[in-house]
Amino acid sequence: MTLAEIRTAHTTTLAEAMKANADRTFYAHWPEAPSGKIYGETANDEGLARFQQQLNSPFDRLPSEAASTGNEASPYGFPLGVSYPKISVDDLIARGSAAQTAWQALTPEDRASVLVEALERGAKDFFEIGYATQHTTGQGFVMAFQASGPHAFDRALEAVAMGLSAQSHFAMNVMWTKPMGKISVSIDKSFRVVPKGLNLVIGCSTFPIWNTTPGMFAGLVTGNAVIVKPHPGAVYPIAIVVARVREVLAELGLDPNIVQLAVDTVDAPITLDLVRHPAVRIIDYTGGPHFGTIVEHEAAQHGKIVFTEKAGVNCVVLDSTDDLDRAMDNLAFSLTLYSGQMCTAPQNIFIARDGMKVGSETVSVEAVVEKLREKIDALVFNEKAGPTTLGAVQSTATAARVSEAQGLGLGIVRESASVIQPGFEAARSMSPIVLRTDTSKADIYTKEWFGPISFVIATDSFDQSLNEVTSSIRNHGALSALVYCTDAARSQQAEDAIVNAGAPVSFNFNSYVWVNQSAAFSDFHGAGCNPAGNATFADWSFVTNRYNVVGVRKQA
Amino acid sequence: MTLAEIRTAHTTTLAEAMKANADRTFYAHWPEAPSGKIYGETANDEGLARFQQQLNSPFDRLPSEAASTGNEASPYGFPLGVSYPKISVDDLIARGSAAQTAWQALTPEDRASVLVEALERGAKDFFEIGYATQHTTGQGFVMAFQASGPHAFDRALEAVAMGLSAQSHFAMNVMWTKPMGKISVSIDKSFRVVPKGLNLVIGCSTFPIWNTTPGMFAGLVTGNAVIVKPHPGAVYPIAIVVARVREVLAELGLDPNIVQLAVDTVDAPITLDLVRHPAVRIIDYTGGPHFGTIVEHEAAQHGKIVFTEKAGVNCVVLDSTDDLDRAMDNLAFSLTLYSGQMCTAPQNIFIARDGMKVGSETVSVEAVVEKLREKIDALVFNEKAGPTTLGAVQSTATAARVSEAQGLGLGIVRESASVIQPGFEAARSMSPIVLRTDTSKADIYTKEWFGPISFVIATDSFDQSLNEVTSSIRNHGALSALVYCTDAARSQQAEDAIVNAGAPVSFNFNSYVWVNQSAAFSDFHGAGCNPAGNATFADWSFVTNRYNVVGVRKQA
Repeated sequence: MTLAEIRTAHTTTLAEAMKANADRTFYAHWPEAPSGKIYGETANDEGLARFQQQLNSPFDRLPSEAASTGNEASPYGFPLGVSYPKISVDDLIARGSAAQTAWQALTPEDRASVLVEALERGAKDFFEIGYATQHTTGQGFVMAFQASGPHAFDRALEAVAMGLSAQSHFAMNVMWTKPMGKISVSIDKSFRVVPKGLNLVIGCSTFPIWNTTPGMFAGLVTGNAVIVKPHPGAVYPIAIVVARVREVLAELGLDPNIVQLAVDTVDAPITLDLVRHPAVRIIDYTGGPHFGTIVEHEAAQHGKIVFTEKAGVNCVVLDSTDDLDRAMDNLAFSLTLYSGQMCTAPQNIFIARDGMKVGSETVSVEAVVEKLREKIDALVFNEKAGPTTLGAVQSTATAARVSEAQGLGLGIVRESASVIQPGFEAARSMSPIVLRTDTSKADIYTKEWFGPISFVIATDSFDQSLNEVTSSIRNHGALSALVYCTDAARSQQAEDAIVNAGAPVSFNFNSYVWVNQSAAFSDFHGAGCNPAGNATFADWSFVTNRYNVVGVRKQA
Repeated sequence: MTLAEIRTAHTTTLAEAMKANADRTFYAHWPEAPSGKIYGETANDEGLARFQQQLNSPFDRLPSEAASTGNEASPYGFPLGVSYPKISVDDLIARGSAAQTAWQALTPEDRASVLVEALERGAKDFFEIGYATQHTTGQGFVMAFQASGPHAFDRALEAVAMGLSAQSHFAMNVMWTKPMGKISVSIDKSFRVVPKGLNLVIGCSTFPIWNTTPGMFAGLVTGNAVIVKPHPGAVYPIAIVVARVREVLAELGLDPNIVQLAVDTVDAPITLDLVRHPAVRIIDYTGGPHFGTIVEHEAAQHGKIVFTEKAGVNCVVLDSTDDLDRAMDNLAFSLTLYSGQMCTAPQNIFIARDGMKVGSETVSVEAVVEKLREKIDALVFNEKAGPTTLGAVQSTATAARVSEAQGLGLGIVRESASVIQPGFEAARSMSPIVLRTDTSKADIYTKEWFGPISFVIATDSFDQSLNEVTSSIRNHGALSALVYCTDAARSQQAEDAIVNAGAPVSFNFNSYVWVNQSAAFSDFHGAGCNPAGNATFADWSFVTNRYNVVGVRKQA
């Protein structure tokens, strides 16, 4: 396999992906269905077997080191027992720095082609990735397959394509000739991409691939050596991807340390040492706001580029709808999916005290809330769909938060209860709790309640609901907003207010698209302009801040 | 005049400028010669008359305020006596914030067209701008005309075009249809540009337009309201430009406060109050490193976007040449032009103790240095070219620095002496001082000696010269580097080392292009990756960091 072959093999994919980024219409390079027809009839069995073989074993797709580490446990109730090579911070930095020179010397096209090849190889592992994701994050298998497989890989390809578009925009070599009356003067110019330096990508426990591949591949395509530092609770899924990239690099005679996996444990964390190391010039962070703010502060102090996707308080406004059943079906699914453990999941649902207009009728708050409860119940108690939609709760802290919510003394729309995950008796799984309150309890609901916890909040009016949403976005951040409104003027008012506050907004979702979802190549994930984070997957800034263009001029 | 007319009028200009940005070949929208044939036979006389009328008068092209301020003095030896409206920081912020909403609601194309119209109007003032620049900065008239007129306006157009390219890349409205087996689901999507907020542009005293228009126009084209805060010593030139933009905005029925001029004095500065105001979200700064570092720190503390172009220590390596006369002619001009008061002017000239290869001969350090002195003398003592090339020294601090250099006790290649500027007996004008030392005096020459001060530094070898340069770039920043070298291997070594250290590099300049110059639409000014500053005129980051794209999704 040569670089030239890889370039040829992936020209079309890259061209399509660049076009998709510009067009923003539906595009997916990898189909999202975990179907044997698409991925091969034996793919599921092979992936499951590979997952089972990996349990209680060293992860030998990465070169072994003197020491190993790892301490993952499935939210479905068993330890994974996978161990990973343990590499010191100094070694990670030294190896990454040594690897970068040759990588940055490649053309952007070559880097992009190598990365697409790695993604195509990684796609062969989608089923193993699905099981690895299920048993680190708690996601149901289908969601785990989609989120960590096709969707995450599409986000990676999106970032690669954006990086290539950005770097390809300027001519790399030109003869510049300035006319000066009767004479002219010529300068032979070239422009070189200079990556900022080592790119640290810090992952989270709930979306170990989806939230990591954008920064990882954006960093790589722009010439940076990357150190991936997964959450200690969700290493296995991204380890598969890192190993695939290293495999391709090694086959091409490139230094595999262009991308490295840095594994630690909760008891002996190394993330801040990496963040603070002067050779680390770019940091991608997805995860909780507390540590995210520390990372942002460290980066600001030392002039590092930082991309964050923390979390916010996502709001819903219920004003009017043509079809309350479909609206509440949609909202119920968003609250239930992966037990509210998505950074885009709704938390606060505002409704005017007068209720909601449904067609020409007015439906009371009581009736709307009852409808929502009904729809959640229907999903949760559906034997087939309920447990797999909910999945398990990744961390004990989230489970404890549900208990805390139960003790708040607020009105209860829906109680949380244990959920049996068939085949996994010890799974940490529970149904959503929905509480009911009003704006006097803002001190409670304006903080983030990560997990299957939501609040229905009565307000005086649509205007007050909207004010609550925009002030929440400005002060607490948001990654999504959802409005049900059939009135044109109010819809425009909501759109202007929410967009200017800095959050993406969705209207009247009532079908097979949910506010939690953001589609690669179309939806920008993370607005980047509210306290929930400064990064957007994948806008121009997400790639252009990772390198500089430096000119070379020669007298011709 | 309507927006539609303006859009039609400037479509071609914008298309050409966007293409020029991508091609990087020679392009200039405004010719650089201050010629009657181009700008009208009476343009010079009219510009001079307008300048003379403006002296000792209020600047009435901006609306008057209760108070006025202004304290400019020509480096050619007389006070300007121009007064400007004085607006409080609170009023500047309130007016800018109020103006932004309607501006951001325009399409990027409309904003770009309005800005080109303003530039075309401003181009009618090039001669007045030239005199205003001469008598605030000290530049000779021709340079002042070019730097603040066509070159600065081309940099403005470059930023407008980059901003338009960036914002036009993504479709603004799409119907997204996802196939789902037998059914499909459609979402009506739109994407809105949300500017970060008020954009403060802090100017400097030596290039009041050239260094200000890039940030000012980049901020405007991306939808931000802009507050231009010139250096108190060089307000008049940029006031003309701000007034022209406001004139066009007002004629279109837009709020002229979309761009405002904030004038202060050295005794009562307001810059830090603006920098610290929470509504200011973007800061452009060009000027000295000391204040620049304060601005960067303030911005980092409060999550503001900051673009800096401070100053560095620009280095030259003399290794080998085919033609010593032409090489030293070129270098002498770079050292003499505007008395070294360009952020791109060379300061430290490294030469191996063995001397320089000239063709097949070796020329001693002594002889090279003597040649350089000879070339500077020839230029300085040329009655016609000398005084206008040198111009006057903008600040007393720079003049004092020349005296300080004289007292360093280093070997003297060339003494500085007073220069008579014909017609301006009291001009602060002096010829370059060139000192001679070796690497034992690094503590002296590694700091920035802004002004007509340079050092020839003997090293052990080419390799040591190059090491000095790269370590200087990394530790003290640089905006340019110049290498004379005819050896292919050494040239490649120098190119790789200097580019990777983060500075643009020029080789063997021996004609009518000088290392101080950077051409709009071709050369990226400011590498952005060394301590001299983080901004580059005008790369992607220079525009894309000023706004976010926020999505709106509607169930279709």
